[in-house]
Amino acid sequence: MTSTSRKGRRGGRAERSEKSPAPTAAPYIKRSVPCHEILTEEDLATIEQGADTLLKEIGVDFRGDEEVLQIWRDAGASVDGERVRFDAGMLRKTIQKSAPREFTQHARNPDRSVRIGGDNVVFVPAYGPPFVHSLDFERRYARLEDLQAFIKLAYLCPSVHHSGGVICEPTDIPVPKRHLDTIYSHIKYSDKAFMGAATAGERAEDSVEMARLLFGADFVEANCCLSSIVNVNSPLVVDATMLEALKVYAKAGQAVTITPFIIAGATGPSTIASNLVQGLAETMAGAALTQLIRPGTPVMAGFLSTATNMRSGAPSRGPEPMLALIGFGQLARRLGIPLRAGGSFSSSKIPDAQAMQEASSFIYATVLSGANFIIHAAGSFEAGLCTSFEKFVMDADNLAAVQRFLAGIAVNDDEIGLDAFREVGPGSHFLGCHHTMARYKHVFYTSPLADTSSFEQWKDDGGLDAATRANRLHKKMLGDYEAPPLDPAIDEALRDFIQRRKSVLPDSFA
Amino acid sequence: MTSTSRKGRRGGRAERSEKSPAPTAAPYIKRSVPCHEILTEEDLATIEQGADTLLKEIGVDFRGDEEVLQIWRDAGASVDGERVRFDAGMLRKTIQKSAPREFTQHARNPDRSVRIGGDNVVFVPAYGPPFVHSLDFERRYARLEDLQAFIKLAYLCPSVHHSGGVICEPTDIPVPKRHLDTIYSHIKYSDKAFMGAATAGERAEDSVEMARLLFGADFVEANCCLSSIVNVNSPLVVDATMLEALKVYAKAGQAVTITPFIIAGATGPSTIASNLVQGLAETMAGAALTQLIRPGTPVMAGFLSTATNMRSGAPSRGPEPMLALIGFGQLARRLGIPLRAGGSFSSSKIPDAQAMQEASSFIYATVLSGANFIIHAAGSFEAGLCTSFEKFVMDADNLAAVQRFLAGIAVNDDEIGLDAFREVGPGSHFLGCHHTMARYKHVFYTSPLADTSSFEQWKDDGGLDAATRANRLHKKMLGDYEAPPLDPAIDEALRDFIQRRKSVLPDSFA
Repeated sequence: MTSTSRKGRRGGRAERSEKSPAPTAAPYIKRSVPCHEILTEEDLATIEQGADTLLKEIGVDFRGDEEVLQIWRDAGASVDGERVRFDAGMLRKTIQKSAPREFTQHARNPDRSVRIGGDNVVFVPAYGPPFVHSLDFERRYARLEDLQAFIKLAYLCPSVHHSGGVICEPTDIPVPKRHLDTIYSHIKYSDKAFMGAATAGERAEDSVEMARLLFGADFVEANCCLSSIVNVNSPLVVDATMLEALKVYAKAGQAVTITPFIIAGATGPSTIASNLVQGLAETMAGAALTQLIRPGTPVMAGFLSTATNMRSGAPSRGPEPMLALIGFGQLARRLGIPLRAGGSFSSSKIPDAQAMQEASSFIYATVLSGANFIIHAAGSFEAGLCTSFEKFVMDADNLAAVQRFLAGIAVNDDEIGLDAFREVGPGSHFLGCHHTMARYKHVFYTSPLADTSSFEQWKDDGGLDAATRANRLHKKMLGDYEAPPLDPAIDEALRDFIQRRKSVLPDSFA
Repeated sequence: MTSTSRKGRRGGRAERSEKSPAPTAAPYIKRSVPCHEILTEEDLATIEQGADTLLKEIGVDFRGDEEVLQIWRDAGASVDGERVRFDAGMLRKTIQKSAPREFTQHARNPDRSVRIGGDNVVFVPAYGPPFVHSLDFERRYARLEDLQAFIKLAYLCPSVHHSGGVICEPTDIPVPKRHLDTIYSHIKYSDKAFMGAATAGERAEDSVEMARLLFGADFVEANCCLSSIVNVNSPLVVDATMLEALKVYAKAGQAVTITPFIIAGATGPSTIASNLVQGLAETMAGAALTQLIRPGTPVMAGFLSTATNMRSGAPSRGPEPMLALIGFGQLARRLGIPLRAGGSFSSSKIPDAQAMQEASSFIYATVLSGANFIIHAAGSFEAGLCTSFEKFVMDADNLAAVQRFLAGIAVNDDEIGLDAFREVGPGSHFLGCHHTMARYKHVFYTSPLADTSSFEQWKDDGGLDAATRANRLHKKMLGDYEAPPLDPAIDEALRDFIQRRKSVLPDSFA
């Protein structure tokens, strides 16, 4: 249907970087386990018709951006003030005409570039929390040093495939300058792919400019080197700030995820089916806009929904958002663009049983949905307000198990191993047989955190809980961390750029 | 293919019991979310052929039971000493000729009878641990009072559909007498269905006799009133004790689950495909035997497998056993009998993040597999050696969320609610709209344990972790517990029976 990659020389300046010795692993997941299909064809058609009705009858507000309204007029949409309405099928057709089904986001280390879409799964850290938590200091406002520590941890975890963006907010840096230090930190302390800023048009411009300094302007023009989140202000509004960022990234041909954020009962109705209708309508409106701005720009359908806890009034992720996520995956596959959705969410305030009960349930729903680009896969708790050091490494461990899960079951004569049964026979054991000896080192996923020893051994080892073991692990990892090499000329160019930009940006904290 | 229920008057003496006022809920799950299919038709056929080869070429040992060997000879199997070999397809044909695809296990309260097989899911507590754990006393050997407390908790949790059996071992009771106090406790403190003993033929006989006293002998003859576990001594052995119990239950027409227990790399080869071949061969051998003893006896395919942690050597449940479980579900559906498999397993020794990370991952794999009868769904940790009071209520909460998950997504005009969008429009909220107000009380699953409040509110509430909240909850539940009424004549008959049996059984503790 569409091109799956854009031409251009491969690697850019990144190829000139020396390759980092650590860590080695598959840079992303190519899944063998199929997605789970829980809605029927009839259900899916009903939801798609609902979205078409919503778009034609009620429409979407695109606020404070005359350029965008003119784009819609030119494309044949009905524009009434800032309200834009769409004939049935128009947005789907616009998207399917030019949006890639899959694309590659390049990393400065080409071995860590990630393929987004299709059967590929990319795990990305938490995004956006203003707070951090560790057993060492409990909860406090996040600082640049925390962000850098999380970038290092993401670099060191093979199951975290992408460096992400605002893993936590560096609140010690003035708001207008944060994006510069954030992006520089990703480039300096990791060689995985990273995200650009979307909180203002000029911050998106700065992000693209820093990508040009890193990869070379021609390479960025021809390839995806940044991904970004454009949130829809659900219900059915895209505001001026988001439109600014969307335009910058789309014009630069960099990846945009259009993410409705539907709090069921608040920013959307309370039912799953209505959330799917709304999410599909909202994501199609944003995704089609990217294609009208620059056909072929990589764009992802996004979907986040929460339930509402009827005692606390707070958003929460329970079984309803899990179902909605899996259902939305089916809609995204029919639309034919990659899906950004899901994560390792929790409402807990500490790395306790609730934190991992919720995170584990949700991350499996996430991969069953077929989501391709999974932000908040590591570290998120307190319903997204806080990034936890201990939960980051617990999630990373869990993600590595999920990665093994997605490899599925190999069925062939070797794996079935009838000779092993012939060798061992009834009532004996397979511990030393050839079939076991040939495989035992790599056949099982071995968690670095889970305690599987006896009660007595566990007691002898100090009787530690998982959170305390995770605390020790993340500190050991950070102690052992070595930065991947970065071309000094690129480093200097980035520092110069940041200095120039900071000299003209205000020092406000709001 | 086969009868799905046996004739007979409904309810038996149980109908004469007054109905308990609490707790009210669906007595089991009828799932709307389909099972997950991860193996292809070709994979499944290859595995089935592997099992046929194993059964024909290597065979299964049935030890210490001449009656069973004669049954196999009469059925046309090849018997060589205690080794029995089967022609391809013979066992499958025997099972499919008479084993019910679904059956009802009756509870003394008919409203709590459970349907096992097909799209039905029944959650059953932990089974077998010699230890118990609570934050109040840490870990110790389990006592009868602990077992009774767990029976009460299971009675009070609507998401635990069945009272189970040895939720923990009452180690303060002599071994030969434990089953009597165990079964009496299930009858006395709950009105849900329960399991019979299988650790010796005479204990199985006692279990059936107590069921006859409770339900009436005619009713038990015509209906399933007990379920039981018959473990295969993997690889490829069924020992004399298990055969004794199997024969008692099959002759009485009571449900048997045939459960291979495959520790990958030890009691089976290390690969998933080989575990599936072995599990299918072993469970078919046991299931067919029940049908030869009494055609139509309810029998379940069982399957438990673990990985092996290559650092500790301990069995562990990670992604490989999750995959094996889901794959085995497909094999069981092709075989056409209900599946007993899965659970909320963990290797943790305390109710921490590891406990619920592992339990949540595994219980979702369990329901994706289509398992029908899920023992160890609540309370199990320490790899099955210990039942935890806190984890029991955490698991029950998780099971309630899973129950909501399995209800799936309703798609219709009411649920899509286009009128709600018409009423609210872009940029507003749905909090007070008619569509939300009509639903908000019941639309979301609300956990009694998860904290979804703000950090500040959580701190004000004491800043408790999930385990501490679970500790308070299980004690409150036990404090509020009221026993369901039991017909005094039945109670007396049961007590008389137990007294007579205890007077002839030894007081050994080994």
